[in-house]
Amino acid sequence: MTAAGEEMYALVERLYPLCRSITGDGVRATLDIVGEYVPLQVHEVPTGTQVLDWTVPQEWNIRDAYIADAAGNRVVDFAASNLHVLGYSLPVSATMPLADLRGHLHTLPDHPSWVPYRTSYYKPEWGFCLAQETLDALPDGEYEVRIDSTLTDGHLTYAEHVIPGQVADEVIVSCHVCHPSLANDNLAGVAVATFLARALAEQRPYYTYRFLFAPGTIGAITWLARNADRVELVRHGLVLACAGDPGHLTYKQSRRGDAEIDRVMRHVLSASQRPHRVTEFTPYGYDERQFCSPGFDLGVGSLSRTPYAGYPEYHTSADDLGFVSPAAMADTLAVCREAFAVLDRNRRYVNLSPYGEPQLGRRGLYDSLGGRSDAKEAQMAMLWVLSLSDGEHGLLDVAERSGLPFDTVAAAAGALHGAGLIKA
Amino acid sequence: MTAAGEEMYALVERLYPLCRSITGDGVRATLDIVGEYVPLQVHEVPTGTQVLDWTVPQEWNIRDAYIADAAGNRVVDFAASNLHVLGYSLPVSATMPLADLRGHLHTLPDHPSWVPYRTSYYKPEWGFCLAQETLDALPDGEYEVRIDSTLTDGHLTYAEHVIPGQVADEVIVSCHVCHPSLANDNLAGVAVATFLARALAEQRPYYTYRFLFAPGTIGAITWLARNADRVELVRHGLVLACAGDPGHLTYKQSRRGDAEIDRVMRHVLSASQRPHRVTEFTPYGYDERQFCSPGFDLGVGSLSRTPYAGYPEYHTSADDLGFVSPAAMADTLAVCREAFAVLDRNRRYVNLSPYGEPQLGRRGLYDSLGGRSDAKEAQMAMLWVLSLSDGEHGLLDVAERSGLPFDTVAAAAGALHGAGLIKA
Amino acid sequence: MTAAGEEMYALVERLYPLCRSITGDGVRATLDIVGEYVPLQVHEVPTGTQVLDWTVPQEWNIRDAYIADAAGNRVVDFAASNLHVLGYSLPVSATMPLADLRGHLHTLPDHPSWVPYRTSYYKPEWGFCLAQETLDALPDGEYEVRIDSTLTDGHLTYAEHVIPGQVADEVIVSCHVCHPSLANDNLAGVAVATFLARALAEQRPYYTYRFLFAPGTIGAITWLARNADRVELVRHGLVLACAGDPGHLTYKQSRRGDAEIDRVMRHVLSASQRPHRVTEFTPYGYDERQFCSPGFDLGVGSLSRTPYAGYPEYHTSADDLGFVSPAAMADTLAVCREAFAVLDRNRRYVNLSPYGEPQLGRRGLYDSLGGRSDAKEAQMAMLWVLSLSDGEHGLLDVAERSGLPFDTVAAAAGALHGAGLIKA
Repeated sequence: MTAAGEEMYALVERLYPLCRSITGDGVRATLDIVGEYVPLQVHEVPTGTQVLDWTVPQEWNIRDAYIADAAGNRVVDFAASNLHVLGYSLPVSATMPLADLRGHLHTLPDHPSWVPYRTSYYKPEWGFCLAQETLDALPDGEYEVRIDSTLTDGHLTYAEHVIPGQVADEVIVSCHVCHPSLANDNLAGVAVATFLARALAEQRPYYTYRFLFAPGTIGAITWLARNADRVELVRHGLVLACAGDPGHLTYKQSRRGDAEIDRVMRHVLSASQRPHRVTEFTPYGYDERQFCSPGFDLGVGSLSRTPYAGYPEYHTSADDLGFVSPAAMADTLAVCREAFAVLDRNRRYVNLSPYGEPQLGRRGLYDSLGGRSDAKEAQMAMLWVLSLSDGEHGLLDVAERSGLPFDTVAAAAGALHGAGLIKA
Repeated sequence: MTAAGEEMYALVERLYPLCRSITGDGVRATLDIVGEYVPLQVHEVPTGTQVLDWTVPQEWNIRDAYIADAAGNRVVDFAASNLHVLGYSLPVSATMPLADLRGHLHTLPDHPSWVPYRTSYYKPEWGFCLAQETLDALPDGEYEVRIDSTLTDGHLTYAEHVIPGQVADEVIVSCHVCHPSLANDNLAGVAVATFLARALAEQRPYYTYRFLFAPGTIGAITWLARNADRVELVRHGLVLACAGDPGHLTYKQSRRGDAEIDRVMRHVLSASQRPHRVTEFTPYGYDERQFCSPGFDLGVGSLSRTPYAGYPEYHTSADDLGFVSPAAMADTLAVCREAFAVLDRNRRYVNLSPYGEPQLGRRGLYDSLGGRSDAKEAQMAMLWVLSLSDGEHGLLDVAERSGLPFDTVAAAAGALHGAGLIKA
Repeated sequence: MTAAGEEMYALVERLYPLCRSITGDGVRATLDIVGEYVPLQVHEVPTGTQVLDWTVPQEWNIRDAYIADAAGNRVVDFAASNLHVLGYSLPVSATMPLADLRGHLHTLPDHPSWVPYRTSYYKPEWGFCLAQETLDALPDGEYEVRIDSTLTDGHLTYAEHVIPGQVADEVIVSCHVCHPSLANDNLAGVAVATFLARALAEQRPYYTYRFLFAPGTIGAITWLARNADRVELVRHGLVLACAGDPGHLTYKQSRRGDAEIDRVMRHVLSASQRPHRVTEFTPYGYDERQFCSPGFDLGVGSLSRTPYAGYPEYHTSADDLGFVSPAAMADTLAVCREAFAVLDRNRRYVNLSPYGEPQLGRRGLYDSLGGRSDAKEAQMAMLWVLSLSDGEHGLLDVAERSGLPFDTVAAAAGALHGAGLIKA
């Protein structure tokens, strides 16, 4: 897993400098790089397209932006960090006294050396984000402000990667690709999703897995609007965000709270004995908001390490390459793989010999020497699968009721299926 | 609220001297006084009327009663306290030795200075209640006993006060008016009901509120028997009793246990951070016994301070004007008002834009500047209302799931309703 | 109860020496003795009969078996303990060196002085069980081994004892009779079942009680196979095993977990304030495995003291007459009687006067003197029965909700039924 951790970190490093937003060339460049790891189908949706209750906005691109003092020194410079510009800023080119400029400046007084991340997607606005201590050091006087951006009809860009399964039923894995130079939120999520896709592609899973790389909110809404017929195939889903910080894992349950993905994640996190938190659904956070809106109400949860807004570095320049680690991303990836390994095998079987116990011995499935009290775990797992295979319990139920490892239970189900004693 | 407390206490003081029973002029005088505060519709139901499994009994009135010693001194005197006479005592006029009289005397040996409260509504009987220490001081000898009462065909009297709502669905608030000079049980309940009615009358509530001032058991049974068609309109209800003692509040749940009034009372008591108790339904207590009988099974709970039989002063002369306080009654009234303010607004809405989140920003309902982690409470409340408005969850569910104050949730629902995003 | 304990112990002593197995004359001799206490209907099912997924095996009988050293001394002797022979051993008569013999010897290295109990019903095999210390003391050399057994077409034997009830619905009580000289497992269970049958026969119970004395697994399977039409009459059941050891009582719930027998046993064990354990169903143990298989899924639990495999003496020669006691068996029997006394009376009634409370006073069911706070337990029980008699709650529900003793509740139901206020 260490190798995967290092590779994911290298991907985060490559993506970090790009200026992403909900539209624009930064998203395209990001998807180009991800596409080097897993093949992507990229979609371009024109400005003005109606998507559910929303409209695809104009496309925003930016080349340069700065505040310069009277001597021409750039005191705030987009080239140093793309966080310095309010996302979706209108172009501006003006000179004004500091007093007038202040209304367009955003700082974090409580963290005077950090630059905040701010956007104004749907209200026309321009602005700069800077460290409070930078602002404090600016003398009064005239400043040149310039934002060389364009806001024009164009496209919203998102991408999909699909791993075909044995059935058309889908598991959706979604991550947002709209945040600029913020490492944990969400380049770590993008990296874990990418390497999870690579790992799943090496097998032929039961479910069809669909990975979605899209801008937050409007991207998920656009996908949902364009895939109305496909939504009913989505059985389970996971939103990945904040996947690389040093905190413990946090699983936020779907709106349903008892969806199968909720049960699987709770089981895997608990069985793995990792310190972790499971939280109730709230209608705030990432794209689980859209997948779990009451009209869709999909079984989609969200996996993070420290969750949304739960760390001071959140949405600031301190969410940088030093805030995430290969080990943390490798751990998040490992849990995802463990969870999908359970989810993918969590069938419900029907006992074909449900009246009394079938005689396992003559089928070679049972230790023949009676009287001993040390019934082996594999035999116990077979008895449990037979007992609960009534069409209402899945293998995860069996694992939880029996206290046996899911792998043992799944192996027992395989043996019984092979002997014709149960059917899926 | 202090003013209301003082006014309620003044009402209790006026009502205290009257000799009430399940019928008779004491009830009429009580309703006359309550009628000065809120208009009452008074009903007179003739003796012999069949009401469910019961029959309206004869009407009982009493003018005087005493036990006098050989010297003619009244050693027990109805004029001193109406508790001295066994309720519904037959008239008697006789002279007898103390030994014979003892079988008609009721005392409280554990509280030798208190006079017990006793009745014999349905078994013809006469008797006196007195302090154990009074009895102990009586020398042997002949005593004159006289009860100047009448038990004749007449009427059972009860009253209603109705506050019309926006819908015909009703909330019933009931209190018993049959106890004589007992302050907590139930003049405090009568006073709180009266002032609750006054407070509700100042607004136009959603529900129709029906206040019932009736003798215990037979009064509620009579009302239920005469309102068979109205019962199906009763959505919620509350029985008020023992509303003025110094103890903490106690809410006794309806027989259902999960009726909306149960959930509202639990929420309000908990949210208010008052020390309180919530107890399960039992088929003993006050008129919730009748409203919650299995044939009706109405969502009617009971609010008390120290509940039924839970304090030594219960049903004794120690339940006097010193046992209740303006502050305690004001507190009970405040909780009732808070609870009905929640109950009255606890609508279920349906999200009219349930697929993905509606774009609140273009409707002026959402802060437009993205990226900040301090989502405001009002915005969170809107997201929660949208998320749970699936026709199955009410605003109380939203408040409890979100942890937000009910008022904030109700305000958010109002804003969303105004914007056409949800419907009731 | 002490007398019953002594009688049960005497029965265990008589049964102890017999060499039982899943077929054969030891079972027949056992049933002959039990039949002296309660009349039994004995069934003989021929070898080769198909029973569910199983086939009735050949009948096994044994007359003698030993290992003798070169001097002719019997170093292991069936006559000393029937545990010395692997159950269902094929006949053998041979001389072989100890090295070759070892593969047929079973010991318990952790308990070097105990003889294990082992069987090989379905795999042709022969073997001896002996103490590890006996084995360790054997010098190398030639040994004569002889097992004078027969394995031939014959019958499987089991017996039933039926106590007719007022209804055809049945309660089944089952115990296994296939273990040789093991006192707790299961002669104590056989003895408790026998005396429970005697006690029930003294009354005319509501349910029909069927006692089943049968070999483990194949016996229950045979009964189920031959009684397909009767199974649907089985409402409740209890498997008795390990009923005489010094440990606390353990009730293992049915697969359903909320069957009526589960609720009754939990209630009785808890109300009796005996230390005890209630465990979840597992598909391992005794014949509850068959009764609770998913096709039948009967409401059958299992009562033991220390349960299956939960004590070191389990399935060893240390499970002897000193391991069980009259007091422990008497206690197990007492709990069974208490439980069936509840189960047998746990009717659901319907309140025939469900609108308001019926006037109990005029029916002589209620203390007529009002005002007192010490409502008697019997009156409370009547109010509770009336309140919950809605066709959905049984008397056990009433006892649990009210906190009143089941006997009090049942008596109240009897009084109300007598007054025509409730019907079954």
